[in-house]
Order: sequence, then structure tokens, then C-alpha cells
Amino acid sequence: MSFTFQIKNTEKNARAGTLETPHGQILTPTFAPVGTQATVKTLTPAQLESTGANLILANTYHLFLRPGADLISEMGGLHNFMHWEKPILTDSGGFQVFSLADMRKIDDDGVTFRSHIDGSKQRLTPELAVQIQEKLGADIIMAFDECSSPYDEQYSEKAMQRTHDWLRRCIYAKKREDQALFGIVQGGVFPELRKKSAEFIGSMDLPGYAIGGLSVGETKPEMYATIEIVNEILPPDKPRYLMGVGTPEDLIYGVQRGIDIFDCVLATRLARHSAALTNTGRLNLKNSKFARDPDPIEEGCTCYTCKTFSRAYIRHLIMAKETLSGTLISIHNIHMLQFLMQKVSTAIIENRFDEFSRSYLSNYYYKPGNSADKII
Amino acid sequence: MSFTFQIKNTEKNARAGTLETPHGQILTPTFAPVGTQATVKTLTPAQLESTGANLILANTYHLFLRPGADLISEMGGLHNFMHWEKPILTDSGGFQVFSLADMRKIDDDGVTFRSHIDGSKQRLTPELAVQIQEKLGADIIMAFDECSSPYDEQYSEKAMQRTHDWLRRCIYAKKREDQALFGIVQGGVFPELRKKSAEFIGSMDLPGYAIGGLSVGETKPEMYATIEIVNEILPPDKPRYLMGVGTPEDLIYGVQRGIDIFDCVLATRLARHSAALTNTGRLNLKNSKFARDPDPIEEGCTCYTCKTFSRAYIRHLIMAKETLSGTLISIHNIHMLQFLMQKVSTAIIENRFDEFSRSYLSNYYYKPGNSADKII
Repeated sequence: MSFTFQIKNTEKNARAGTLETPHGQILTPTFAPVGTQATVKTLTPAQLESTGANLILANTYHLFLRPGADLISEMGGLHNFMHWEKPILTDSGGFQVFSLADMRKIDDDGVTFRSHIDGSKQRLTPELAVQIQEKLGADIIMAFDECSSPYDEQYSEKAMQRTHDWLRRCIYAKKREDQALFGIVQGGVFPELRKKSAEFIGSMDLPGYAIGGLSVGETKPEMYATIEIVNEILPPDKPRYLMGVGTPEDLIYGVQRGIDIFDCVLATRLARHSAALTNTGRLNLKNSKFARDPDPIEEGCTCYTCKTFSRAYIRHLIMAKETLSGTLISIHNIHMLQFLMQKVSTAIIENRFDEFSRSYLSNYYYKPGNSADKII
Repeated sequence: MSFTFQIKNTEKNARAGTLETPHGQILTPTFAPVGTQATVKTLTPAQLESTGANLILANTYHLFLRPGADLISEMGGLHNFMHWEKPILTDSGGFQVFSLADMRKIDDDGVTFRSHIDGSKQRLTPELAVQIQEKLGADIIMAFDECSSPYDEQYSEKAMQRTHDWLRRCIYAKKREDQALFGIVQGGVFPELRKKSAEFIGSMDLPGYAIGGLSVGETKPEMYATIEIVNEILPPDKPRYLMGVGTPEDLIYGVQRGIDIFDCVLATRLARHSAALTNTGRLNLKNSKFARDPDPIEEGCTCYTCKTFSRAYIRHLIMAKETLSGTLISIHNIHMLQFLMQKVSTAIIENRFDEFSRSYLSNYYYKPGNSADKII
């Protein structure tokens, strides 16, 4: 097994390290852009690589429905199919079954649902989720879990219990030795459930652990508190993955609380809605004030977009409904988060992350005279 | 003036040469991809450059309406705005006024119309078309012309007459010395009108000449016959530009009849509709027979798409409605036409274009057992 996780330095709860995978080393903390359908939307792998992205995430639910895991397996697996030679993580399909599929029926054995694409009847179980992910061939695969409504205690407990049972079955079903299976902590916003879940999940000897069921409607303080509760219990020598979180400020808050891996569609979804992430806030590039702005999205940024194009040009593309605007802003947004994670990692190694994050967050929200808009 | 056109070799009517522009040399015959709104749809300039594209076309009508010529001029002109450092050609806006604008009224002085974007009342005259193109700053600019219905003789004569009067006014209005103004031959499918137009336009001392009003509904034999009639009259030492034509076979037929420059939206429009151009015909990549096809779009092709992705992956992107499919097929389609033009140019220089084109066209249409589909 080549999934060695090495922590190079810690500063309070923040950790900087490396995770070895069959497709290369991941420097942590790391942010994984999302390539739902075996493509990070609007970007070629070459463009994606130019952002500094390393680990990317693909969605089992989507790929299972279309084009199918057997087809991807025949084409040499996901890395070969989409031509991404660096590490890939697949989720288990659980989250999408609960958020996208129609007419789902959950039982203790698994979930029956109708495809959101063609209405066809489908079923996923822990065993199937593992088998599909083994066909896809990602470096990191996720246990099949049930994400509850965050404020429904009874349901959260039930879903947590199923998630625990299903993790056992996933571990038992897993055959490939070259994939790392991560378990997922559930439990809504309820501290006792989260503790119980972290204790159970953390007691399984796994190469990594994830916190699920966050960024699904709870408040930010609830999210941060939950991360703290869980990370106090999870084994400190294994990577910790916070699922579905990806604003610049939440990356900082997450790292402060001991998170090593993040993923989120935000960077690319915002980009397709004309919004750029910068280190001082968000820019709505559709705003008419950018019509004649010769500056790049972010001064000093070294991404292809900022080295090449003005805000005026990108705004023109947006107004003209040219999809290239989404491509260019996606390149910037992903690059910006990658670069932020690099700075965070270096700061932790140099024992100045506390200072870095304080300075970063104050500039992010309050820099006087900046042109940041809060739009999405 | 840096618009030297040098013919390196001729074979029958086909010519291979070079055209110098302020933004570098164009090897002819050449195919110009279309960047209607200051972007070749779905491609970054870096991707476009990787296809071997050199000259590109942008549409004055679209840029005049949005974002406006003054804005582009303020941003340093079109080259700087869209970051294309190689030659650019802008059309005059005439063709789009006649094909896209609403409620247009033509008089001898110009055209009044309503914008297809916001319904605003607009006016273009020969003088304005030149001034706008001077603000955009392309290397090659086009005279303002009127494109008639190809089969309406009376209208074709009237439109041709206006086109001639308007060319005189364009020449008079032109101030910049670093742009080459091309005149446009009109006259529908009527040989006598085409001769008259070619004689008049050809008598103006211009750095190049275009054939307009083709590929607008006439038959292919009528198009080829018109090119022959016109090119017999146009000055042989100046470049000849066939507007709006861009299938592989029509590039060959055009070069055989003495054309040096082509432009067309076909390569990129087909790409966004899942169709790939190959040297043996078109492929509809949406076809289910490509679902598990591990081959590239075209065997032996050296474009980024063919070096990197299978037909199966591209078909998956199409089925999943990922715009990356349009990007990847656009890269291939443009590269394929650029490479074809390079082979044509070399063949002319080596006096074997006749043989090359015969062999090419027989493979293009009739190669036994090829998987080409005629779809668009």
C-alpha cells in the first residue's frame, strides 16, 4: 500500500504534510476541484494542470449513470479515460442519491432510486458503491454513507447508524489494494452523534477519514464546531477530508481545525456565473464597472487568465454569452485556491500560520477600498 | 505599407505564397477560423495557436454592437483585447446587417437597422464601417458591401452597383496606413454581373480582393463557376479571399480556382454540434457506435485532442452536455483544416497539387468502409 501520510509540521491544530498515492504525492492541506462527469467543467486537463491542481474529485453517482463504470473500466479506468494522470478521489454516490435522484427508497441494505437523467430505476448498496469505484479506479475511494437533514436528530442518528453499518460492508467488499478507502463521519449538527460517529469511524483502521453532512444547510458556527468535535477524536496520524467545502475563508477555518483535504464545486460553479474568487473577496465580473477595466482579475496573480486578459475582456465574454468566460474564470478561481493552499502549507511549515490566517482573513473581509462584491 | 504578397509557385490556377502583415506573415493558401465576438468560440488564444491557426476573422457587426469599437480601441485594439498577436481580418459588417439585423432599410448612403441584441436603432455607412474597423485595428479590413439574394438579377445588379459606389467611399474614408483594405466582388450567380464587378473592383488599386455573396444558397457548380469567372479577371498578383467557405472539399476546389484565403464558422459550429471533420469525411461523434471506441477522432492526427482523448471520452462529454466536447472538437477541426492547407501549400510548391487534390477528394468522398457520416 502506497498511501503513506506524513505530517511535516503542525501548528496548533493545523497540519502540513504529504500523502502518497499510486498517482503521485499530494501536498496537504490541499483543495480538490470537482470533475463531476469525468471533466472539471470547461477545462482541458492541460488547463487544469496549469492551475496547480493535483487531486481532483469525480462523482460516482454521475459516472455510474453515464457513461457507466464498465465502460470507463474498459477504457482503462478514470485516469486514462479523462486523461488526468494525477490523483483522483471518487465519492461513493451517497450524497448525490440523496440530493439529485428521484423517488428514492432507503432501506438498511441500500437505496433504490430513479435516475435524474432518464428516470430509470437504479439501486446502490455499499457493496455496489465499492465495486463501481473499483472499476473507476480512483486513488481514494469513499464509503457509501447516508447524509441526513442536519437538524433532524432522530433521522441523523438513524442515518449515522446506517453509515456505520455500511462502512463495515464497504471494508468487507473492497478488493483492490491500490485504492485507499476513507470512512465518513455523519451525525448532523448534534455533538453527541458526531462524537459517537467519529469514535466509531476512527476506530476502523483506514488510511483516511472524512467529515460528511456539512455545508448542507447548517450555520457556519455549527460547521466549525462540528469539525472541532470530530477532529479531536479522529486518529491524528491519518488525513482528514472535509467534504464539499471550498470558500477561501472556509479553507482557512478548516485548516485551523485540522483538515487536510477539501473539495468543492464552488470555484468552477461561481466561474460559470461570472464570479471570480480573489484574496480580498469575490468579484462579479458582469458588473458594468469592469467594462473598461484594463486590469487582470487579481493584480499579481500568475494564472494564465490574469497573465493574459483584462477584466474588460472577460466582462465582454460574459455579456456576449461566450462560454470562454467560464473557462477563463475557472482557471483563475482554481489557481487562486491552489496558490492559497500552497501559502497555507508553507506558513504551517514555517510556524507562522496563525499570523498568516489572521492577516489573510482581515484582508479578505475588510480591506478598505477593495472592489470585492458578495454576489453568490 | 507592409502588405507584400509574394507568390512562390503556381500550378495551373493554384497559388502558394506569403502575405506580409503588421502582425506577421501568412502562408497562403490559408484558412481563417472565425472569432465572431473577439473569441473563436470555446477556445483560448493558446489553444487556437496550438491548432496552427494564423489569420483569424472577427465580425465588425457584432463588435460594433457589443462591446463597441471605442471600448476595444481604448483597450489597445482587437489584438490586445482578445490577446491574439497574429494577423486578424475584420469583415465590414455588411453581411451580418443583411442576415441578422431586424427591420433594415437600405439607401444609397448606408443601412439603418435594429440591433438583434437589444432592438436599438443603428446605422452603418461605408465611412462608419471603415472608421469602426480602424478602431478595431485588424490587419486586413473589408469594404462595406451589400450581399444580394443570389438568384434575383435586378437586386443583384443594384446591390453590386451600391457595393462599387461604397468601395470608392471606403477607400476615400480610410486613414490608417497599417491596415489593408480589400474590395468585395458581388453579382449573385450572374456571370455578366460578376465579370462587371470583378472588372470594377479589380481596377481599384487595392492590396487584396474578396469574392462575396457566395455560399449563401446557390448551388456548388454555380459557386465554382463564379469563382472561375471572377478570378480570371482579378489582378493575379494580389491575394484573393473567398468569404464564408470552409469545408475541406471546398478549400480544395477554391485553391484549384486560384483562391488564397478562406474563412468559415463551419469548423467550430460543427464542433459544437458534435461533428468532427476528418480527411475522409465527417464523423457524428454523438453516434452510439463511438461509445466504446478507444481511437482518437482521426488516426495519425497530431492535434491536442487526438493525441489525448478517445472518441469514447468525447462522446461521453457530448452525452453529458459538457461544453468541453465543443472545445476538443473545435481544436481538432481547426487543426485539421490548418494541416490540410499546409499540405496543399507544399503540394503546390512541389508542383503536385493536381495529383494531391485528386487523391484527397477521392478519399474524402469514397474511401471504402470509412465511418464518415454526413450529418450537418
